[in-house]
Amino acid sequence: MRRVYNFSPGPSAVPEAVLNRIRDELYDWQGLGMSVMEISHRGKEFEALVERTEARLRELLAIPANYRVVFVPGGATMQFAAVPLNLAGAGGAADYVVTGHWGKKAVTEAERYCTVNVAADAAATKYTAIPPRESWRLRSDAAYVHYTPNETIGGVEFHFVPDTGAVPLVADMSSTIMSRPIDVSRFGVIYAGAQKNLGISGITVVIVREDLLGRARRETPSVIDYRAQAADKSLLNTPATFVWYVLALTLDWVAEQGGVSVMAERNSAKAKRLYAAIDASGFYRNPVDPPARSWMNVPFMLADPNLDKEFLADAARAGLASLKGHRSVGGMRASIYNAMPEAGVAALTDFMADFERRRG
Amino acid sequence: MRRVYNFSPGPSAVPEAVLNRIRDELYDWQGLGMSVMEISHRGKEFEALVERTEARLRELLAIPANYRVVFVPGGATMQFAAVPLNLAGAGGAADYVVTGHWGKKAVTEAERYCTVNVAADAAATKYTAIPPRESWRLRSDAAYVHYTPNETIGGVEFHFVPDTGAVPLVADMSSTIMSRPIDVSRFGVIYAGAQKNLGISGITVVIVREDLLGRARRETPSVIDYRAQAADKSLLNTPATFVWYVLALTLDWVAEQGGVSVMAERNSAKAKRLYAAIDASGFYRNPVDPPARSWMNVPFMLADPNLDKEFLADAARAGLASLKGHRSVGGMRASIYNAMPEAGVAALTDFMADFERRRG
Repeated sequence: MRRVYNFSPGPSAVPEAVLNRIRDELYDWQGLGMSVMEISHRGKEFEALVERTEARLRELLAIPANYRVVFVPGGATMQFAAVPLNLAGAGGAADYVVTGHWGKKAVTEAERYCTVNVAADAAATKYTAIPPRESWRLRSDAAYVHYTPNETIGGVEFHFVPDTGAVPLVADMSSTIMSRPIDVSRFGVIYAGAQKNLGISGITVVIVREDLLGRARRETPSVIDYRAQAADKSLLNTPATFVWYVLALTLDWVAEQGGVSVMAERNSAKAKRLYAAIDASGFYRNPVDPPARSWMNVPFMLADPNLDKEFLADAARAGLASLKGHRSVGGMRASIYNAMPEAGVAALTDFMADFERRRG
Repeated sequence: MRRVYNFSPGPSAVPEAVLNRIRDELYDWQGLGMSVMEISHRGKEFEALVERTEARLRELLAIPANYRVVFVPGGATMQFAAVPLNLAGAGGAADYVVTGHWGKKAVTEAERYCTVNVAADAAATKYTAIPPRESWRLRSDAAYVHYTPNETIGGVEFHFVPDTGAVPLVADMSSTIMSRPIDVSRFGVIYAGAQKNLGISGITVVIVREDLLGRARRETPSVIDYRAQAADKSLLNTPATFVWYVLALTLDWVAEQGGVSVMAERNSAKAKRLYAAIDASGFYRNPVDPPARSWMNVPFMLADPNLDKEFLADAARAGLASLKGHRSVGGMRASIYNAMPEAGVAALTDFMADFERRRG
């Protein structure tokens, strides 16, 4: 069995320890004689998994007691609708800060439901920088301020939590959650698709401050109504049970590694190594403003884009997979989420140096 | 490794051949050195899986060319909102035929979006029969007629497709799809959560007649907008990729078994054996009107409900799992979807006879 270092932006690498658990328990989970994917979500065994998952998430992220955690289907794109449906009311307004592709998509979807005020947009920098907080034009009557702490395509990340005063801050943390400690109390809503740092695709975690529940518009489908799901322990509908199980295993793995502060140390070290290799080279280039560089997604360009294909083919032969950059940016992109070991980043920087020696 | 016969109503048993494929490919799918759950849904390998899944589904169900197939998150409960959002327009009306728990839930959710006319409701029979087609009070201006071909809790199934003239017929086939051949051309929309006969929970198949696309209300989240998903090959958002893969494996398994007509023969034989055992006994009882008895979900009561606990405990010891009836009905329920082998039903009827001898 051959395994590669997988730099996919998401769905992305799963820790090998998690795959081993899946293998060991595939035919017989907890002595039931059934796979976890074959059992009812209403049985006591699955309900215990649900409770364990939430408890683990609360412990890892130090979620305060006045926040509820709900698990819903549909990924961040569904939340682009769910957030205004749950929070904006009919005829309400909301602020959006756009620092890349996903922030723009959130705006487009929200426009179906509320008046969207784009309070800041980094388009002029080609999404390579974060507009300073002082430049944001926030509305005083906004139902919330939405932003994207990490943009996977541009590789732009907030290394601070913006202050929005009394207006609830809503964050699409799909690609950064669990990569470092966060102060949940600074947020109104945090949501994150699981397929980067929480497991595999098919489930979205929503952490919502209790006082924001109960504002959903009548047109909100029950399945994405935060209050309705919170009232039903997120079992209002049949969830993606196997995906939930992988989420639970992934959280266990983070805890075993030492929690989010250990993740943060590793992620910081991995990112530092990769950016240092890029910056020290005359051959590779990362276009992002250094204070806004992502720990999770590192785009880089070759001096000669005609070499891109050869780079990718050689990298694949060296066991370094899924390095192709997004078509809107070009070049390469290394996504180095929690599951990417430091050895994988070292293998990449070694390969990059070798490629530069041969072809630079 | 101990495996049991799993009579769970859903999520439910997965064919062992499918579990074997999952095991064999867990660490390295198609020689990529990555699990299928670790790869991008935008890569050519996953896109090929997407195309293969649709082609296989079209072949198995003989779906006509003027129907589109979309794959969406959220299960049937999400479709309870998606159907009126996509089809009823603003201020529209729709007919609902209620033959049990799921039909009632569909009504409650639809009432957020349109004027619901309950054209027939089997409540007076305690949901043990299907109201004759002649008794349905359909509106001539309905956007569609919604019904539930199989109700999992009551164990009531339509063994015919009702005629609704020019008004599109919408069917929640979550618990009956792929159990027998269907004439897709009789329907406007067919939807089905995967977790009974199509694999595991986390994906829903929607088969929609082309002329019904493009009627969605502005408040429809993109992820459940049939036209938007059809236009984007159901990859508008990151789907539950592993769940999709299990769907593909399950469809392959159905094809290898000989297709839906073979499934129908087996399901008919399994149901016949179980109902015959119940009817021949003075100890067990199924309350459903015989022409409406489900092939998929068979509720049965013991003559003395005080023996229920003992029955369940003895059955579990005999390797017969998840037989407890729904709390609203009581007694037992055997769900015998495609993945339940005839030997499993035989083991159940043998056990029932033995229990009756000992305790009847």
